[in-house]
Order: sequence, then structure tokens, then C-alpha cells
Amino acid sequence: MSVIIAGKIDAIMPHLFILSKDSEEYRSILESSSLPELIIESELTEECEIIFGAPSSIRDVLDKLPNLRWVQSMWAGVEPLLDPSLRKDYILTNARGVFGGLMSEYVIGYLLAYERKIFQRADSQKNKVWDKTLTGSLRGKTVGLLGVGSIGADVAQAAKFFGMTVRGFTRESESSEHVDSYFHGGQLLDFVTGLDYLVSILPNTEETQKIVDAGVLNALPSHALFINVGRGSAVDESALLEALNQKKISGAVLDVFEQEPLPKKHPFWETPNLAMTFHTSAPSLPKDIANVFIENYRFYMEGKPLKYQVNFERGY
Amino acid sequence: MSVIIAGKIDAIMPHLFILSKDSEEYRSILESSSLPELIIESELTEECEIIFGAPSSIRDVLDKLPNLRWVQSMWAGVEPLLDPSLRKDYILTNARGVFGGLMSEYVIGYLLAYERKIFQRADSQKNKVWDKTLTGSLRGKTVGLLGVGSIGADVAQAAKFFGMTVRGFTRESESSEHVDSYFHGGQLLDFVTGLDYLVSILPNTEETQKIVDAGVLNALPSHALFINVGRGSAVDESALLEALNQKKISGAVLDVFEQEPLPKKHPFWETPNLAMTFHTSAPSLPKDIANVFIENYRFYMEGKPLKYQVNFERGY
Repeated sequence: MSVIIAGKIDAIMPHLFILSKDSEEYRSILESSSLPELIIESELTEECEIIFGAPSSIRDVLDKLPNLRWVQSMWAGVEPLLDPSLRKDYILTNARGVFGGLMSEYVIGYLLAYERKIFQRADSQKNKVWDKTLTGSLRGKTVGLLGVGSIGADVAQAAKFFGMTVRGFTRESESSEHVDSYFHGGQLLDFVTGLDYLVSILPNTEETQKIVDAGVLNALPSHALFINVGRGSAVDESALLEALNQKKISGAVLDVFEQEPLPKKHPFWETPNLAMTFHTSAPSLPKDIANVFIENYRFYMEGKPLKYQVNFERGY
Repeated sequence: MSVIIAGKIDAIMPHLFILSKDSEEYRSILESSSLPELIIESELTEECEIIFGAPSSIRDVLDKLPNLRWVQSMWAGVEPLLDPSLRKDYILTNARGVFGGLMSEYVIGYLLAYERKIFQRADSQKNKVWDKTLTGSLRGKTVGLLGVGSIGADVAQAAKFFGMTVRGFTRESESSEHVDSYFHGGQLLDFVTGLDYLVSILPNTEETQKIVDAGVLNALPSHALFINVGRGSAVDESALLEALNQKKISGAVLDVFEQEPLPKKHPFWETPNLAMTFHTSAPSLPKDIANVFIENYRFYMEGKPLKYQVNFERGY
């Protein structure tokens, strides 16, 4: 039953709970943004209809929220909430639009480190060798993006800025103007043939499991570099290990792994031409992620469609 | 006296000599470009009116060329031809427009290596440490460009692409739309105050000698990174050494030095937080440099002003 207080209907004053190790920082950002009507609870109560937090934590409280209407994930990846055993009777939105810039910096940074021989030059300096080896360039190279959502579109734009040709592999969408040619479904091997760089930005879904397998790695030129900034599950790690050890490809840069943190005994730690970055490519910075919530909250209060809704069927 | 051959005037068939260790490659590119009227000499003769080559080699033949009208330098830097004892009764054009992309890749590459802690992550991998240290970002940072010619304008554009604020220090020009604010003359210390990154792209002229001195380095914030892709002469190397050793700035990336190759005994080799790249930032690639010549040759034959003319007084 709705109770009218000072001209407002209590039912439309939504109760929010923030579920994150950085709750205090988020609360302080939201409080200073004077969001209309919002009640930020300091404990999880049955009244909460909005949860803003980390999917791995939200998963454990889903059945304590009879009034749940909307979950805003602080991450791009929402796998913990997709488990078939979990309820899906709410709107799930993820964090998008904030990682593209960081991911572009990461991808361009490691491509340049590779072409510019940044590690080799550091070794030459150590050995006091005036190393005039010619550097490579991004200009004229061809990059293939496995997955072209909002992050992929930003990476595509950065690749175009540096004069690359950009191929995109997607389920069906062809929405980025910065992708020169799109590939879908059965065209995976055509997509990778002749690439200088293969970059996976794929989420973890049933369809993306081990999509980067021996077949894909064998189809790449031997000078190709592989970068994974999506999810570790998209890669057949044994096949990648073999491709690197047998020099079927030139190198790999991995931000994500099947198991994280990577077990100490995993051979990746010592695989030649493999650089790893410990899932740091695009950190969720509270000020960025809070802005996603704030924008969506305004839509929520106006009864408009929320941005970045996750389709529970597709998983992204 | 002009002799008419097959309807053409011999006097307008210019004789070219190519003076470079890559002469054969240049000759083959020019020959396949079917340039009208051009006669490419295989030896240096008195008839040569055009020289296309490396300034350090051209310097030695200047007095053997009574018909010299135009020198196209294969380099951006033309110091060897500026010596007061040398003739200056010809048009000198340098190589421009081809280095900007490579220089941008270099600058962005090393800024990203710094922000993304690329070397630190490599060490963590070596030590099998799952290193979740937060990465930095270029977005929102302020870069100061010492010298904003055609290369600087390209670096400015790349910096804007990554969301940086761009300051430019020039003699007087304010021609790049990608520079947010310009500084000149006595404003050097204002220009560097508060910069996250200082990038020198200055040529070697009287006015740029040791412009990056103790005063400039002291005015930089302690977290600042200094990059030199211009000429080594623009830096007071002792002052830089002291700034790095005393951690007055966070680091330096040097492509150029007062003396090259850098002497083995120079303390830079072992200075902490100094990365060096041995004058490789923007190699003169024959296909790029040949295009500069080809374009200018067409202007030359049409009697139009040549591009990239060097002002002997200013030295660039």
C-alpha cells in the first residue's frame, strides 16, 4: 500500500543497496549527486528494489529481495548472475561505455610495445648496445576484433586512428562504422586468415567457449600477435600454449585466464613471448561506474528504458 | 645553350643525383614512378641540379655542383647543411609529413608503457606475482609539446584522441587546432608547470640549445615524464641526470642525445627510470621519403613553390 508523505508517494522512493568493497566511496559519490527520491540503505533490507554492485556478491543475496526490480552491475561481465538456477525476474544492466577508452589504451599500448620492440630496446640498454634495429608501425596493419560491442567499437576507432584495417567478428551485429569488414558464424577462419593482430573482447557465453582454438591459431600468420582482454573462457589455453611454444604465432598478451588468479603452476607464467597483465586492462573506477548508475537511475525514475540491459538468454 | 631533342628542351630535363646508402632502392622507386623529364645520374656530375639525399653526405659535395638549384633532404634534420661556411644559394627542402605518424606511435607507445606499468607487469610475471596494481590512463592528463611543427601537430592530434589536454610551446606559430593553449618565449616555465608529460620535438637550432635545463626540470611536477624525440642538443644532459637521480621527475625516455651513438661511459646507460631508444623513433623509410621527393618534383617541374622549404636563417 502506498502512503502519501509530503505530497510524494512512498512507493516511488526507491530503496537502494550498494554491494561492493568500495561501498563507502560509491555512497559518497551518489549522495553528492542529489539523485531525486533515492534512499540509500546502509543494510540489505526487503524493501530494496535496486541493487548496485559486484555480480559475484549480488548472486548470494538474490533470494533475499522480494521487491527487487533492477540490478546495476559494476562490472561489464555478469556471468555470476546468469546461472540457470538463479531468478531472472528483474532488469539487469551492466557497466558499459566506461571501459572502451581504457581497453583501447591497453590494446594500442601493447601493440605499440610489440611493434616498437620496447622490451628489446630495454635489454639493449642493459647491455649498452646502440640498437638501431628498425621499428615496426601500426600503420597498414590488419587487426581482427573478436566481438564488437561498445568496447570493441572503441578499440576499432583507435585502430583506425593509427591507420589499421579493422575486421570484426560478431554474432550478427554490424553497428560500428570503424570496422572495415564484418564476419559472422561460419566465417571464423576467413576472419583470422592474414591478420597481423587478433584481439578477443568476447564475453563469457556458451557460444564463446574456447572459440580461440587450435584451428584459429593455426590459421593465423606466424607473425601474428594475439591479445585477450575479454574472458579467459574464450581461449583453449592448451592450444595457445602449443601455438606459442611451437612459434605458430609470434606472441600473446593475456589479461584474462580460465582460472584467476592464474595458479602458480600454470605453464603460462614461463611461456616465451607471452605477456600477462592480471586482469588489470580496464579497472572499474568508482567515479566512472557511478556515472553509469546515475544516468540509468534518472531513466529509471522517468520510466524510460535503461541503458546497457543484459539479455539473459544471450548472456550479454 | 639549350638543345631541342624530340620536341623537348634539354635544359628543362633536370639531372638528379641520389646520395644515400639506400640509393639503389630510391632509384628503383623513382624509376617506377615515371617522373616526367627526370634524368637520374649514376655519378655525381656538374650537370646535376637536384640532389636527393642525406644532409651529412650532401654537405661534402656542395662545392662540386655549379648547377645546383634544389636539395631534397631525406631527413627532417638538416643541421649539416646549415654551417655558416656552406653555400646557401639553392632551395633546401627537408622531409616532413612522413614522421608525424611514427613519432605519434612512439610518444603514445611510451606514455602507455609508463601509465600501464608495462615493465612492472613483466617483472611481476617473472616473479609469478598476480599483480593487481591499478593502472593509470592517458585520459585527463596534460602533455606539453616543446615545438609544434608538422610532427608536433600529429602528436597533438594523437594526444587529443586519447583525451589529453595539450599545451604547445613555439617560437610564434599557433597553427595546430589540436593544441589547447600556446606558450611562447618567456613563458617557458609557465608552460611546464603542472605538466604530466613533457615532450620535446625541437630541431637543433641556436635558440633550442639546452632549453630543457635545470630550471625547466625543477618546474615539472615530480610525477612528470620527459620524452625527447627531437634533438639531443635541446637538453642539458647533466641537469637531466641530476633530476632523474634525485627523483625530481619520475622518468625520461630519450631517443636522441648530444653525442650519438651514446658513448659507452655515459651515465645515461645506467640511470634509473631512463629508457633509451637509439634514434629509432621515426626511421626514414625509403618509400615514405621517396614520396616526399616525388610530390616536390612535380611542383618543381610546374614551377610551383616546393613543400617543406627550410629557412636557412631560422634553421628549420
